[in-house]
Amino acid sequence: MPHAFVFDAYGTLFDVHSVIARCDQLWPGKGTALSQLWRTKQLEYTWQRSLMKRYAPFSQVTREALQYSCELLKLTLGAKEEGALMDEYLNLKTYPEVPEALKKLGGRKAILTNGSPDMIEPLVRASGLQLDAVMSVDALKVYKPAPAVYEMAASRLKEKDIGFVSSNCWDALGAKSFGFTVYWINRGGAPLDRLGFRPDKIGTSLNEVLL
Amino acid sequence: MPHAFVFDAYGTLFDVHSVIARCDQLWPGKGTALSQLWRTKQLEYTWQRSLMKRYAPFSQVTREALQYSCELLKLTLGAKEEGALMDEYLNLKTYPEVPEALKKLGGRKAILTNGSPDMIEPLVRASGLQLDAVMSVDALKVYKPAPAVYEMAASRLKEKDIGFVSSNCWDALGAKSFGFTVYWINRGGAPLDRLGFRPDKIGTSLNEVLL
Repeated sequence: MPHAFVFDAYGTLFDVHSVIARCDQLWPGKGTALSQLWRTKQLEYTWQRSLMKRYAPFSQVTREALQYSCELLKLTLGAKEEGALMDEYLNLKTYPEVPEALKKLGGRKAILTNGSPDMIEPLVRASGLQLDAVMSVDALKVYKPAPAVYEMAASRLKEKDIGFVSSNCWDALGAKSFGFTVYWINRGGAPLDRLGFRPDKIGTSLNEVLL
Repeated sequence: MPHAFVFDAYGTLFDVHSVIARCDQLWPGKGTALSQLWRTKQLEYTWQRSLMKRYAPFSQVTREALQYSCELLKLTLGAKEEGALMDEYLNLKTYPEVPEALKKLGGRKAILTNGSPDMIEPLVRASGLQLDAVMSVDALKVYKPAPAVYEMAASRLKEKDIGFVSSNCWDALGAKSFGFTVYWINRGGAPLDRLGFRPDKIGTSLNEVLL
């Protein structure tokens, strides 16, 4: 087993779709559609802005993706609704097994996230998770899966033998392309992304893959 | 008006969803879902591979996106079905107004496309469209909206005053970020993407925007 583990945050430790309930409160019956579209656009904007060389922090990208999504779904997004939904991102739920799995797992543990410090720091604090480091792409102004992002984790942790853990297949494969040992937490039974690489191990939860 | 016009191909001149009929022949009732997912994954893979610095030609990316999409939708994709659907991409229909609009429009006209030569050259030939140049990102091994792509068009055409025309909002905004005058053909009434730029002109067809 590697001596250090680096975890993706959104979708891996924290359930981005735990915003569905609040979306449904605001627009009954629309929660799932809004949450899915919001996540899709959020990621698209990170890739497009990175390629355009027009980085903006994840908090801004997330807010802009929400505005786009509400317009597409014809949901009226006032300042109050926008504030409430952005606040949800500071209190996302961890997946059920995450707190115990991290406690049981030996070695150093860190987060490597797209989240800008204004989003990820309150979230980690609220979660109570104990981590040795929280690293954000914001230091580099480029998003995953650029190799510079994974390189930053390797150089900050001063560790070559790193296990990288993500539920986002493209993120896991970006880390594999860089050179990490990679664990794909495939919670939803998704197909493997065709990006020229394969994860070293695949399972449906942190427990199954790491413990 | 600009002296030269550069057009995106897929989604702008050629309707990528003209594959729906063939999809529906193969898997009745699944055509629209497959076509939409196929297009979404195709674009995601172009962005992810570009960021990973693992370029593969658009023909490969398109085939891999098809394989992923069929697996997700639980459609059995044999060699025969895969070949038939990939062939459709060499015979996509132009949007109805395109042939006449290009004839009427003055100035030099070129295509700037993600499509690799093995895909775009047969397609343009089959369409009968008359163009002064067909430029592919394949020469650069990076996909839109990287600024290097738009720069290539400017330098090959030796023209500063270029009008860039795309139905893909993120592509139009990538070109705007680079510095082109930009025309967004918003055929489906989509919201404006929030990427920090606005097109110079928006309309629902080439005729409305250019003639």
